[in-house]
Order: sequence, then C-alpha cells, then structure tokens
Amino acid sequence: MRIGFIGTGAMGEPMARNLCRAGFAVTVYNRTRSRAEPLTADGARLAESPTDAVRDADVVITILADDAATEQVTLVDGLLAALSPDAVHVCMATISPALSERLTEAHTAAGRAFVAAPVFGRPNAAADAKLSIVAAGDSAVFAALGQRTFVVGERPAAANVVKLSGNFLLASMIESLGEAFALVRKSGVDPALYLDIITSTLFAAPAYKNYGSIIAEERFSPPGFRLPLGLKDVRLVLQTAEAVNVPMPVASLVRDQLLSAMARGYEDLDWAVLARVAAENAGLE
Amino acid sequence: MRIGFIGTGAMGEPMARNLCRAGFAVTVYNRTRSRAEPLTADGARLAESPTDAVRDADVVITILADDAATEQVTLVDGLLAALSPDAVHVCMATISPALSERLTEAHTAAGRAFVAAPVFGRPNAAADAKLSIVAAGDSAVFAALGQRTFVVGERPAAANVVKLSGNFLLASMIESLGEAFALVRKSGVDPALYLDIITSTLFAAPAYKNYGSIIAEERFSPPGFRLPLGLKDVRLVLQTAEAVNVPMPVASLVRDQLLSAMARGYEDLDWAVLARVAAENAGLE
Amino acid sequence: MRIGFIGTGAMGEPMARNLCRAGFAVTVYNRTRSRAEPLTADGARLAESPTDAVRDADVVITILADDAATEQVTLVDGLLAALSPDAVHVCMATISPALSERLTEAHTAAGRAFVAAPVFGRPNAAADAKLSIVAAGDSAVFAALGQRTFVVGERPAAANVVKLSGNFLLASMIESLGEAFALVRKSGVDPALYLDIITSTLFAAPAYKNYGSIIAEERFSPPGFRLPLGLKDVRLVLQTAEAVNVPMPVASLVRDQLLSAMARGYEDLDWAVLARVAAENAGLE
Amino acid sequence: MRIGFIGTGAMGEPMARNLCRAGFAVTVYNRTRSRAEPLTADGARLAESPTDAVRDADVVITILADDAATEQVTLVDGLLAALSPDAVHVCMATISPALSERLTEAHTAAGRAFVAAPVFGRPNAAADAKLSIVAAGDSAVFAALGQRTFVVGERPAAANVVKLSGNFLLASMIESLGEAFALVRKSGVDPALYLDIITSTLFAAPAYKNYGSIIAEERFSPPGFRLPLGLKDVRLVLQTAEAVNVPMPVASLVRDQLLSAMARGYEDLDWAVLARVAAENAGLE
Repeated sequence: MRIGFIGTGAMGEPMARNLCRAGFAVTVYNRTRSRAEPLTADGARLAESPTDAVRDADVVITILADDAATEQVTLVDGLLAALSPDAVHVCMATISPALSERLTEAHTAAGRAFVAAPVFGRPNAAADAKLSIVAAGDSAVFAALGQRTFVVGERPAAANVVKLSGNFLLASMIESLGEAFALVRKSGVDPALYLDIITSTLFAAPAYKNYGSIIAEERFSPPGFRLPLGLKDVRLVLQTAEAVNVPMPVASLVRDQLLSAMARGYEDLDWAVLARVAAENAGLE
Repeated sequence: MRIGFIGTGAMGEPMARNLCRAGFAVTVYNRTRSRAEPLTADGARLAESPTDAVRDADVVITILADDAATEQVTLVDGLLAALSPDAVHVCMATISPALSERLTEAHTAAGRAFVAAPVFGRPNAAADAKLSIVAAGDSAVFAALGQRTFVVGERPAAANVVKLSGNFLLASMIESLGEAFALVRKSGVDPALYLDIITSTLFAAPAYKNYGSIIAEERFSPPGFRLPLGLKDVRLVLQTAEAVNVPMPVASLVRDQLLSAMARGYEDLDWAVLARVAAENAGLE
Repeated sequence: MRIGFIGTGAMGEPMARNLCRAGFAVTVYNRTRSRAEPLTADGARLAESPTDAVRDADVVITILADDAATEQVTLVDGLLAALSPDAVHVCMATISPALSERLTEAHTAAGRAFVAAPVFGRPNAAADAKLSIVAAGDSAVFAALGQRTFVVGERPAAANVVKLSGNFLLASMIESLGEAFALVRKSGVDPALYLDIITSTLFAAPAYKNYGSIIAEERFSPPGFRLPLGLKDVRLVLQTAEAVNVPMPVASLVRDQLLSAMARGYEDLDWAVLARVAAENAGLE
Repeated sequence: MRIGFIGTGAMGEPMARNLCRAGFAVTVYNRTRSRAEPLTADGARLAESPTDAVRDADVVITILADDAATEQVTLVDGLLAALSPDAVHVCMATISPALSERLTEAHTAAGRAFVAAPVFGRPNAAADAKLSIVAAGDSAVFAALGQRTFVVGERPAAANVVKLSGNFLLASMIESLGEAFALVRKSGVDPALYLDIITSTLFAAPAYKNYGSIIAEERFSPPGFRLPLGLKDVRLVLQTAEAVNVPMPVASLVRDQLLSAMARGYEDLDWAVLARVAAENAGLE
C-alpha cells in the first residue's frame, strides 16, 4: 500500500517514520522541506508539492497545524483534485467538526472517501506507536500508528467532536491540578508527595501522572504541546459547543487562563503552564 | 488494642465492622443508636454516650458528618476530657484544616495525641477495606481499614488539606465530564462509546470509570455521596483556600453548579447530578 | 446632500425616517423590500439594489445585521465599486474591529472613504433621534440621528472596539442584575422596591432603569434587542479581546448564560432574559 | 434626642459629626479612643465604654467593621443589656442578614427595638450628608445623615440583603469596567475618552463616574473602600445567597479576583484595584 503523508511536524514526523518501518511505501511532504528530509533515511520519498505526494497514493494522511492549513492544502492547493478514485484521505489533525463536515461534502461531491481520525497522545507516544486513534471509518494503516483504534460511526465529524472533548478534559484537568497545587503549596504540603497520593489512587491515570509531574516540577519547557495549540483547541471546543447551544463554563474559564498565559509571554511553553498562571494568581513565585 | 469508634454512618459502619473482624475490641457509639446496633453481631460493644465509648480505648476514631458535629462531640460532649493519657484520637472525617488546627491545639494542651486521617473512597471501598488513608501521623489500625496509608507530616491539618483538594479534583472532574457529555450527546455521539474511549486511554483511572458510568447512565440514585455533602466539601475547599489567598476559579464554578442543583431539588441524589445540571443548561432532557 | 441608506431593520428604519424628515434626499434599500416601503411616505426613494442606492449618494449609510451581511453587501454585491469618488461610506452596524479594518483597507485601496460610526440606543431612542454615535471620523448627517457624536480617532476599528465594549458592559449589567434580583426575590424583598432603591442612587442611569424594569416585571417580550443579537455581540467582544490577548472572564460567563438561554428556547425574547436564566438556576419559577 | 454612637471609623466619624451639627446630643465611643476625640470639638461627649455610650440614649447607632465586632459589642460587651426600655438600636454597618436575624431575636427577647439601616455611599458622601439609607424601620435621625431613606419592611434582615446586593452590583461593575478598560487600552483607545463616552450616555450614574475615573487614572490610593472590606462584603453576599440556594456566578468570579488582588499584595488599596488585576492578567503594566 502506498501512502502519501502531508505534515511532518512534532506528531507527523514520528508517525510517518513508523509507517516507513512497518513496510509501507511512504511519500512525504512538508511545507518546510527540511523537517521532512530526515525521513528519507527510513525509506520515505520526498514530494515536491502536496499534489506530488498524493498522486499515486492509496491512502493520503494529513496532519497539519490547524483548520486553515488543512483547508488550504485540501481545497486550494489541489490535494482533493489530485486524489486517485480509490484513494482515501485520512485527516488525523485536530480540526473542527464544522471543517470536517465541509471536507466530507467536498470529497463526496468529488467521489472520493474522507475519514477523520484524530489521535490522542503526545510526540513520544507517536514515536512508540502508542497513539489512540479515534476514527469515523477505518483503515489498515492505523495498526502501524496506534495502540488502539476507536470507530465512532460513519460521520467523520463525530471523531472530531470526540477528539476535541478529550482535549477539553485534558485542559480542565490541567487547570484543576494547577489550582490544587497552588493550594497545597501555600498550605505547606510537599507537591511531590501530593502528586504521589492523588495518582496512586483515584487518579491513577497516564494523563494525571504525566501532567502532574510536569506541574509538580514546573517543567514547562521544552513543550510537549505548545500553549497556542492548546488555546486553538479550546477555541474549537467552544465553537463546536456553541453551534449546538451547549454552555461549557469550565472551557470558558480555561480559555481565559490560557489567554492570560499568552499575555504573560508564555507562548513557547507547554500548555501545562496554566498551572503557573494559577500559582502566580495566588501570589506564588 | 481497644478501639472506641464514634460515628457509624455510611462510611463509618463498614469501617467499624472491618475493625471488629480484624480482631480489635471495638466499642461503637452513634447518635442514632439503631444505626450502630447491627455491629453487635460482629462483636462490637454498644456505648451509651461518646465518653462511654472513649473511656478505656487505646485509639478513638471519629468519623462524623461535618465540622460542627466533630467539634461538638470532641470539645462539648466530653470526648477529649475522657481520653485516657496514652490514647490517640484519630479523626477520619473530612473536616476543615482550621478545625483540625483547633483540635490539635486542644489535644496538645490536654496532653493528648490527635491525628487527622481522612479517607478517599466511597462506602463500597470502605466495606472492602480498600480505602486510601491520608494521615498526618500513623497507627496500627489503619491496616485493617485501608489499602494504603499516606503520611503527610506532623501537622494534622496537612492531611485535611490533601483530602479536601482531592475532593476538589473529583468535583472538578465531575463538572468537566458533565459538560463533555452534554457536548457529545448533542453532537450525536453515543455516551457509552465516548466513555469507553476516554477511560481506555488518557483517563484510565477509577474515578473516571466510576463517575463516568454514573453520568453516562444517569444513575444518580441511590447516592454514593449525597449532593449536600459534596457542597459542604467544596465550601471547605474555598474557605481553606481563602485563608491563604488562593483563588480557585474552578472550585467557585463547581460551587455555583452544586447550588443550582440544590435549587433544582436534587438534594437526595449523588453529587454526580452536576452532570444533569450541565445537561439541562444545554437544553437536554 | 443625498444619502443612500441600506438596511431598514428595527434600528435602520427609524433612523432613515429621521433623515428624511431632516430634509435629506434619502434612497433606501432593504433585502426584504416590504420593510423599506413605509419610508416612501416620508419621501424616501426605494432602490432596486444596493448599487442602485449608492450610485449618486454623497453619503452611504449601512446598518446591517452582522459581519457577514455587511461584508457581502460591501464587497460582493458591489457597494464599494459603485461608490462615487467623493462619497463616504458610514457603517453604523455593530461589526467586529477585524472586519472594520478589512473594509478600511478595501476602501483606501479603492480611493474611497470609510467611517465606522456604531450607535448606542434601542429602537425607541432611534425614533427620537436620541442615539449616541461613536464615530471614528465625522459627518454632517450625524446631527439628524443622534444626541451626541463621540469621535474616537482616525482608525474606524477604534469606534467598533468602543461600541462592542459598551455592549459588553450592558450584558454584564444584565447578568449582574439577574443574579441580584434572584437573591432579593428569594430573600423576600419586593423587586419593584429594590429596583427603586438601586436606581435612585448609585445606579441612577438609563441602562439600569430600562433593563431593571424589564427584569423586575419579567417583560422579555416584545424584544428590544433579541437574544441571538446579544450573543453575536458578546462573541465579537470575545474574539476582539482574544486578538489582543485580553481575558474577559465576565464576558465568558455571560456568553455561557446566553447560550443556555438559547438552549432553553428563548431565542425570540429580549436578551434581558438572562435574568430568567439566573432565576431558573436559583429554582425560581 | 440623645444619641449614642459607637464606631467612629471612616464612615462613622463624619456621620457622628453631622448628627452633632444637626443639634442632637451625641455621645461617641470608639475602641481606638483617638479616632473619636476630634468629635468633641463639635460638641460630642466621649464615652469610656460601649455601655457608657448607651446608658441614657434614645437612639443607639452602631457602625462597626464587621459581623464579629458588631456581635461582640452588642451581646458580649453589654450594649443590649444597657439599652433603656424605649431606646432603639440602629445598626448601620454592612452585616450579614443572618446576624441581623440573630440580633433581632435577641433584642425582641429583651423587649428592645432593633433596626437595620445600612448605608450606600463613601466617606465623602457621609461628610456631605448624602448617604442613601436602606432601613427596615424608621427613625428621625436619618434626616441628618442621608439624602433619602428607603424603608424595606419590618424584617431588619431585608435591609441587609438590599445593602449586600447593592455592594455586589458595585463589585460586579468594577470588575466589568476593569475588563473593558483592559480591552480598550490594548486596542489603542484613550481610556479618558472611553470613560467620557460610557458615562455620558448609558451609564451616566455616580457609581460609573466615580469608579470609572479611579480606574482610568489608576488612582487606587488613598483607598475610599479598602480591598479586604470589599472581599468581606462579597463573602457575605455569597453566604447569604448560599443560604437560599441562589448561585451567583459573577459574585464568585469577583471573589476570586479579589483574592488574587490580596495575594498580589494590594490589601491597602481601594477595591477598585480589581481593575489592575484585570490589566495585569492581560499583560498590561
């Protein structure tokens, strides 16, 4: 199976490498060419343009920064027009359900297949092929990328709703941990011990352990997921919820704290820096 | 070792039973006597008053409803005055750090030992001796009650801070899950599938599985932890944080939603009914 | 002076009538033609299209529903292209500063003048020529429309920021009044007396008197300013603030309550129905 | 008429002076004696104790810092016991409705009259006899103190609810103005011009003009109403609302911002410093 892979950023690069190593014939494209070049060592072919990457592919994977980039490559730069009739376009980026629906319509109108398959996991999970994939369709390539694939139905947009609400739960957890750590620190309790207690019992989950240790150690750099990307996702959550008249007050609150983090100059840090905002608001540091 | 056990409510009753079965000599007291009587079948002796329960005990455990009841029994009804010189008073209720400090001072002034040892876990965990105990001291009795005991230092109030902030994390998680479920339900995603996805990966933790299934199935009755108790704990969190000038906006938000749940007449339901408030605010049901 | 007037809705219709009565030669256009027809009785000429309304005008006023309609008429339907070289396009709608900037650039590139001049006031103030106009430029027509014109500089977008933040203050006031009335009603204080007290002293301002009486009397219909328009404006406030990294937590909170009002089916009521949401959340009604 | 006046702080001192000048026989008491002494120049007699101030008075006015001080003086230090049978105790402090009810009961049981009559206005309004008094009873002394007296019924606690909800509206206005000014400042609009616009029209009210100019000029010192007093009042609002199950999300939000102001070290500034918190959270200053 030939795979066209567009977008070799922090997540896409290790994903594309795993596909190469799993034996797929992978053609990669990235706007900043230098970020795609290392993949040639794993057997990838470098494309000159999005359409060049798409031409002969059975499966085209895109994992670009946001809605705008995804729409540009697909509809303006000609990805959709260059897809062969039997190919499937698998969009693994975190995009809005609204764009997902527009892309579904455009592909359907052109007689092509579109699958939304966003992933949960940070770059190290991508490297270890331990991503969780939430798809609204299915495809053989997923096995090379993830630990498990959840199929949430036939509407691609449904997968995007699940992904976004998952990121909302993460953002909410980070904010809550930040507030809790501010309280225990100002009350004289050791943050590391506190982390050990909460993640040994009720919250013995990867997300709490991972983000909890980042917060307890104030290790916001290098970023695993940069603040502006977190803000973008929370904005998409709110837009998606607004479209169906769902108030999400915790998401609103987190958005305000993320904005304040931006205003404080933390745009190059991990979005867990929300905890620093909570600490500063409590007079710590 | 002789144990005096005061407060045989939803949590205390199974805890006292486990102590009997572990071979301790347990004397129980409960204001509503009928709630303590079944324990005589397990070998407990029934006391006529708090002081009667305390008289010969090596360890006195109290697990009462709130600050007011704990203060009343200890300082007004004579528990402290009746403690023998070598006895330890172990307070396992969720009380405020402020009361914990007052009780520490009172016991110290009287030459008696006071330990705060609040627990994480719902009644079924109490029955299975699977509670997690957060203590600021230690005692041999803990092994019969819990899975694991965390010692957080010498100031009893520190244990109460940890307990309260743990309950805050739970409350925050419930609210966030409520908002997320409102979003996915209005977006046409199956709640059970959504729960499966999030608890298989990032949030594979007991708290998410337990409360997530309550919310997905809207199973708010019978309550494991009643709404007014949840509101009481969030109020204690806010008071504790205010005393050290820590703003906790998620706690404030959750308090408002809990109050609205009270105003909607849900006081006899589990505090997970926060999710119903989120759903109703989104026009569901 | 010849005026082209596009958009004769709840606000535009009385504004256009006042211009006619003040002696200007007014040509009106409205997409739904029947809403413009009554103005012919005051001497207005009916245009067949936006460009027809614009052709010979010295001043073109647009006051359309939102960003999308304003952009469509100006850039797509040909208003800008049809403007004569000396004409001024005065946009009196509540639009985003971002669109205001795009329109400023487009007019400048075409050698035409663009002024943003949003208004404060409800339809009855429009009828009485008592609007307050916030302009980033000036024009003789304003005297016929408003009580007072404030000039906020040369950048049209500045006028839009002022208008939007004014609407934010209104929205915030409504929400706060809603919460205060819920408290006093549940405390057994007469709402009418309460309104009299607060508007006799500290808050002796038109906005408090007007909205306060709507809330005290629960008179949300007929709407002076419909809920979806209020939601649109708060959304614009949040977008504008996000563009400069300004968190506005009260605006976020109000947005959530407006969304809940939408979810409760109140879309045809005045946006003061926020107070009913506050009352319902407190268990009233 | 002989008046006993207890509490000659920032508000009480000018109020007592006006009573002297209006010809009443006033006996004053203040815990810090030096703060009461200047009043002797206006004819006041200095009492040695609260009971000394109360003994022969027809009317006793108390305006103390908070619930604790009011309760101490009235019930512990002997004010109530020393009241003559025909005297009226008029409590003009901002206290909780709950304390107001306890004091009503205590006075009734002792056969004495109790009136709650909290005031709106800052120290300069007190000096000018321009306070607004919200009373749940009436008394001839009010004319010497205020511009207007509103009688809200027979239950003293009702006056306290009105006073507290008025302070809530002020706090909410300050927070909203703070957010609005952060937005306009970061958008390049002159704050003084902005203030002129909003207070010329919709919000032409004393509260907006007064606090608006404090915020526009960042004039938070000397304080007219200190931050900790503002926090105390918002706390009372939330407690009062909680007692009747009324969620007040704006009050919760303001409380969090006030707490952050405390944590930032602003306890000696005017509570309008909320606007500085909003500005700092937006990266200004």
